[in-house]
Amino acid sequence: MTEPYDEANIFARILRGEIPAIKVYEDEHTLAFMDIMPQKDGHVLVIPKQKATTIYDLSDTAALACMRTVKKVGLAVQTAMQANGMSTFQQNGKGSGQTVPHFHIHVLPGSLRDMKGHAVEMADRNVLLAHAERIIACIER
Amino acid sequence: MTEPYDEANIFARILRGEIPAIKVYEDEHTLAFMDIMPQKDGHVLVIPKQKATTIYDLSDTAALACMRTVKKVGLAVQTAMQANGMSTFQQNGKGSGQTVPHFHIHVLPGSLRDMKGHAVEMADRNVLLAHAERIIACIER
Repeated sequence: MTEPYDEANIFARILRGEIPAIKVYEDEHTLAFMDIMPQKDGHVLVIPKQKATTIYDLSDTAALACMRTVKKVGLAVQTAMQANGMSTFQQNGKGSGQTVPHFHIHVLPGSLRDMKGHAVEMADRNVLLAHAERIIACIER
Repeated sequence: MTEPYDEANIFARILRGEIPAIKVYEDEHTLAFMDIMPQKDGHVLVIPKQKATTIYDLSDTAALACMRTVKKVGLAVQTAMQANGMSTFQQNGKGSGQTVPHFHIHVLPGSLRDMKGHAVEMADRNVLLAHAERIIACIER
């Protein structure tokens, strides 16, 4: 179904440490970091370390690890951003609007209905750092 | 975080067989069926059989089973509806817009950007049945 994994995609480069990311959580199988073009304050991305382009490529280990990380980070996002809920969305394939060809789950506080349009502007780095700090403080260890 | 599970919610009633649903897939841990108020043609819901209100309540078994079913059913939805991709979204808690208090993942062909607004009208049952038939035919056994 999916194309060969593109080693040059931006999330692969983040995982290799070639470009920076504002990380909020990391474990053996997953990484969570601030979306630099947030559609809402507190917008975090959860990715597997597995080289998976879409959900169809995910191993069981990576799939479960992503769900666990969404639970952990999602609760922190919701709490840190003082929202009464948390939403996720996820896209697979060019016809879905997926822009980076490495599987990722968008995690946002509250509802998806009041999001800004997709990836229109870079957030101020200091604002992202402040949000990340609040989220990290709320992650249960 | 979440409220006690509401045994009277509509998905609990579907799981108990008290009200009908147009099912496209079922296994030991999950059920997938047509959303009767589709935001797009081919809109399917994947739910765990576990009594989980939100993602925070999901067991590892249920979480992995949901991911596996989304992969299987999502590919069928995408193929059946002739879309070049598949998207999912998922809401947790009243402030997220979650309307049924049983964990569910929305699975849609293509992009989320061309969805109709949330749950505005019931689809024609024969149209849903026709879509379900196409999706079921595309599920890999």
